[in-house]
Amino acid sequence: MILVLRPDATPEQIQHVMDRIEELGFRPHVSKGEHRTIVGVIGDDTKPHSEALEAIPGVEQVLRILKPFKLASREIQPRDSVVQVGAVRIGAGHLAMIAGPCAVESAPGLDAIARRVKAAGANILRGGAFKPRTSPYSFQGMGEQGLEILREVGDRYQLPVVTEVMDPRQVELVARWADMLQIGARNMQNFDLLKEVGQVRKPVLLKRGMSATVKDLLMSAEYILAGGNPDVVLCERGVRSFEDSTRNMLDMSAVPNVKGQSHLPIIVDPSHATGRPDLIPSMARAAVAAGADGVHVEVHDCPEKALSDGPQALLPDQFDKLMRDVRRLAEALGARFN
Amino acid sequence: MILVLRPDATPEQIQHVMDRIEELGFRPHVSKGEHRTIVGVIGDDTKPHSEALEAIPGVEQVLRILKPFKLASREIQPRDSVVQVGAVRIGAGHLAMIAGPCAVESAPGLDAIARRVKAAGANILRGGAFKPRTSPYSFQGMGEQGLEILREVGDRYQLPVVTEVMDPRQVELVARWADMLQIGARNMQNFDLLKEVGQVRKPVLLKRGMSATVKDLLMSAEYILAGGNPDVVLCERGVRSFEDSTRNMLDMSAVPNVKGQSHLPIIVDPSHATGRPDLIPSMARAAVAAGADGVHVEVHDCPEKALSDGPQALLPDQFDKLMRDVRRLAEALGARFN
Amino acid sequence: MILVLRPDATPEQIQHVMDRIEELGFRPHVSKGEHRTIVGVIGDDTKPHSEALEAIPGVEQVLRILKPFKLASREIQPRDSVVQVGAVRIGAGHLAMIAGPCAVESAPGLDAIARRVKAAGANILRGGAFKPRTSPYSFQGMGEQGLEILREVGDRYQLPVVTEVMDPRQVELVARWADMLQIGARNMQNFDLLKEVGQVRKPVLLKRGMSATVKDLLMSAEYILAGGNPDVVLCERGVRSFEDSTRNMLDMSAVPNVKGQSHLPIIVDPSHATGRPDLIPSMARAAVAAGADGVHVEVHDCPEKALSDGPQALLPDQFDKLMRDVRRLAEALGARFN
Amino acid sequence: MILVLRPDATPEQIQHVMDRIEELGFRPHVSKGEHRTIVGVIGDDTKPHSEALEAIPGVEQVLRILKPFKLASREIQPRDSVVQVGAVRIGAGHLAMIAGPCAVESAPGLDAIARRVKAAGANILRGGAFKPRTSPYSFQGMGEQGLEILREVGDRYQLPVVTEVMDPRQVELVARWADMLQIGARNMQNFDLLKEVGQVRKPVLLKRGMSATVKDLLMSAEYILAGGNPDVVLCERGVRSFEDSTRNMLDMSAVPNVKGQSHLPIIVDPSHATGRPDLIPSMARAAVAAGADGVHVEVHDCPEKALSDGPQALLPDQFDKLMRDVRRLAEALGARFN
Repeated sequence: MILVLRPDATPEQIQHVMDRIEELGFRPHVSKGEHRTIVGVIGDDTKPHSEALEAIPGVEQVLRILKPFKLASREIQPRDSVVQVGAVRIGAGHLAMIAGPCAVESAPGLDAIARRVKAAGANILRGGAFKPRTSPYSFQGMGEQGLEILREVGDRYQLPVVTEVMDPRQVELVARWADMLQIGARNMQNFDLLKEVGQVRKPVLLKRGMSATVKDLLMSAEYILAGGNPDVVLCERGVRSFEDSTRNMLDMSAVPNVKGQSHLPIIVDPSHATGRPDLIPSMARAAVAAGADGVHVEVHDCPEKALSDGPQALLPDQFDKLMRDVRRLAEALGARFN
Repeated sequence: MILVLRPDATPEQIQHVMDRIEELGFRPHVSKGEHRTIVGVIGDDTKPHSEALEAIPGVEQVLRILKPFKLASREIQPRDSVVQVGAVRIGAGHLAMIAGPCAVESAPGLDAIARRVKAAGANILRGGAFKPRTSPYSFQGMGEQGLEILREVGDRYQLPVVTEVMDPRQVELVARWADMLQIGARNMQNFDLLKEVGQVRKPVLLKRGMSATVKDLLMSAEYILAGGNPDVVLCERGVRSFEDSTRNMLDMSAVPNVKGQSHLPIIVDPSHATGRPDLIPSMARAAVAAGADGVHVEVHDCPEKALSDGPQALLPDQFDKLMRDVRRLAEALGARFN
Repeated sequence: MILVLRPDATPEQIQHVMDRIEELGFRPHVSKGEHRTIVGVIGDDTKPHSEALEAIPGVEQVLRILKPFKLASREIQPRDSVVQVGAVRIGAGHLAMIAGPCAVESAPGLDAIARRVKAAGANILRGGAFKPRTSPYSFQGMGEQGLEILREVGDRYQLPVVTEVMDPRQVELVARWADMLQIGARNMQNFDLLKEVGQVRKPVLLKRGMSATVKDLLMSAEYILAGGNPDVVLCERGVRSFEDSTRNMLDMSAVPNVKGQSHLPIIVDPSHATGRPDLIPSMARAAVAAGADGVHVEVHDCPEKALSDGPQALLPDQFDKLMRDVRRLAEALGARFN
Repeated sequence: MILVLRPDATPEQIQHVMDRIEELGFRPHVSKGEHRTIVGVIGDDTKPHSEALEAIPGVEQVLRILKPFKLASREIQPRDSVVQVGAVRIGAGHLAMIAGPCAVESAPGLDAIARRVKAAGANILRGGAFKPRTSPYSFQGMGEQGLEILREVGDRYQLPVVTEVMDPRQVELVARWADMLQIGARNMQNFDLLKEVGQVRKPVLLKRGMSATVKDLLMSAEYILAGGNPDVVLCERGVRSFEDSTRNMLDMSAVPNVKGQSHLPIIVDPSHATGRPDLIPSMARAAVAAGADGVHVEVHDCPEKALSDGPQALLPDQFDKLMRDVRRLAEALGARFN
């Protein structure tokens, strides 16, 4: 950590800064420049309380030089993590192809979709039982019954299943039925929920919040890792922007950006990122070319009757084609499924 | 709701659109233009399932014309709501001046701050007992003990108290000690939490999410109102933007924007919006001039030792001056405290 | 400037960094921390070429500690600048109330509007002769004839006039007719245009770009000041954001943010910032309460027939009321007009 | 165009709306819903003046249904345009690989870089002679001498050359030396410059503005096309966002988004989009996988001594590898160079 002092900082203020740094257990190291005095703070600047140094009179700014996350960092674990979901591995060249409807709507409905995505080559089935909806008047999901259906259909097609958990009180219930727990974008900084899934022995799919930086995303992963659960897969799903022709803006560079700093796998969800079926296939291809560890796509066999997010779902035939394209790319790049 | 059809929509597709609209209980009304056919959908377009119409082949876009919130809307209640917190009224010309430290840190610490903000003219005391922190390694709040201290100090200075609740499991506990429950920005779309505080008989301070539109904010208020709790005060606290010299970007126009559409009171939090003590006082004045129903400011008597967000806290003397300025403005504008 | 070295920087890399710093005429000052070595660069870090240090192998990041602008800075000129436009002073407590139509459309049309805004208390008349329009098919302004009309009507009502210049080839022409030259948001980083108005002896109204930070705005002002023209007034007019219910997002905190760093006056344009007549009056009040040196408002007596931006114009009666409110606030705050 | 009337619109207001629509040469078509009356406006709603309808009392909102661009639209020209730059074709499966230094710094310097990028497989050489710099104190480019050097080196290596033009007065000069004129992000809405390059017989590389929507970008292309120059290549180069670990946010979905609406080629510039050499190669791969018509990359053989943007340049060896990867992908996808 580096403190930049104001040009008009008094000797008393400078002394006070030194004293305070030592009180917090750091060592100060002063450099006087032509225009500013700067104080290097020797020691671990991710320590709590260090942020308050910025409030000392005479301090103009505090520059942090260490990353605030540890367990998620590549400095701690240089090699790629591989997360196992059922029999499927994710990371280090193993691609997850997660597909399914936005919400579980009925047993036959899910069966029909699962059959198609399995045939196309998906290796994990998704489907929401608890749905975070902007409006209290929208369909809120089938709840526990939806979980049961998801489990049953997943088993039938030998697809491990992932579904969202929104409430810390439901973590145990969802973990009982699902192979992987999804934390949605709106809950990326729901810290009590993160702590709760940190206690569970199931892998977690952590989606990036709509205005979260890559660092924020890694800090939220750190909550889960610090809780004792090492199996976290990150998901880029677009962030809010001024562009009004897509639902969100897909930050594709988050893929190599995360990989440079962290050993955790990261996949891409072009369905929520774009909200437009005409853009999803090319963004799935781009994700794989960018080095993502998988893709997450919503598929529905009758989007116009979907109870949630129908307009952004791919038809099974479109998903078939997407899988063929992704497979060809993955081969060219040396990645594989499973 | 209006459907715009693609220029190449076939007669079969158009017929299918009509049938589907009627199936959903609406009446279609067709206008053929030179370049596009548009179909007006007569009926309540906030009904569930209507979004899925966008997925019908041949439909280019769906334009919604009704606001998706009802209970929060001025069309339902034209006059300003007044929310009562202890003896303090908020709304319709009554200003809330909420002040206190970011976190409750100790009984004597809070007492010293409360004494000063009360003397300056604050009418509600704030202080966090459960803290949403980006890092799992940061101070997470004193928990229930913090609530007790807050209650005690509030009573001593006859200030009703507001504090954040982050977890649906803690709503009952927090409601037992506090006069008003705060939903933080990161939880604005934590729908299970919103449902839970909708069940409570305590007023709620709902902060705008970091990438929430004004409509999103009102939809989240709708969750609480639909749950049966009519006492919601909104809070503008800045949104994420590219500007890197302030913590967030204060969207001051949200104040009249909300007031044009909704009867709910709205206050402004310049502390979180700017993160900079040098900008807070002028933003507090601007908020009152813009018609806000109050201001929410963090105050600490020793920011450099604060356990959370010290660098953005005002000193008690700075808060004194802010209150004098705001009072003068409020007089000029005919607003009042209490 | 401070260089943070990578944890794995080799001794050769570190030596190379030192050598390069000295080659550029700076002195290096090394601090070895537990996790990182940092190198303070003693000397003026706004010097050209210093950015390239970031590209040296072994350097992790470069932290800049000096502001990159000089002439615009309060460190160079501590007291507020006052810019004179005709007989009107702007800055240091003198408020500019700039009003008029988006575009000059005809002599009688402008006369009717000017008469009303003058009567209401505006002290500068605005009107576009060259219009930056998103579409090549929209009205592009009356050109030189518009300038003549503007001059004539301004003189008739003793209002100095401001109008936009978009093309370096027109600077001389516009400066011949107008009292103040406006640089629009889309041209804030049109550096050849900035250089050209830096050569002129007329004050410049520099609008903030739609995605410009406050620092970017001050750097663009620096171009004009460095060219030799000291009379620059800044204008906050909203930035692009995800909020879709207003045309832009008014960054009100830019007012005190600029004033803390720069001596230049800054005014606020709530017309372009919000695009909504229902929000403009309260944002004008808020601007004055925030300490802005004036307000810029579009007024039209028949918005539905305006050739440009009609929907965001205030009617003359609405502007009358706005002026009464602003005047009352200005009195309460001790500011004055002219 | 569709007008939605306010629920409280009076019969007189409604009549006035009808009259006004007819005055403008459109035909109104009324649908009365349960909550709102809507008026379809039959006729070409991209006509000037139609925006002003929003200002009529009683009108709540105006919904536009036609795209505001024509010549850039796929509805006018369904097949992909191919733009020829020297002997290189761009579009319809032909990829442009544009590479070179940010700025032309000297003849030997440019020669060394050109030799390497040519050998690696680049087919167009870039290099700035006029540089848009945020600071007036930064290197502003070599001007005409830089153009000469660029021409000479391009000829030597049989690479057509592209360089930026910033000022309408320099268009003729730049067009004399360069094979393709670049309009930079900061000038995307410098409409006088767009008009000027619309008059020229050289292809134009139009970069997306930092806060421009895809529609804005296409509208700016429309200015050039409407001026008579059909040879426009678009370039996605990232937009401003809250993410602070990359220079901009690369909107990869702009590639298929543009291609769905327009026949114009679009390439991607990962150098400016990310500002980070570690992210550029994977973003170049992703661009090609997304269907982009080429990539634009900055290369420098000694980034630490570059006079502009050194930290974001690739080294020649890194560019070699990037080209090998892109080539392999292009083969897998059936695209080709030239």
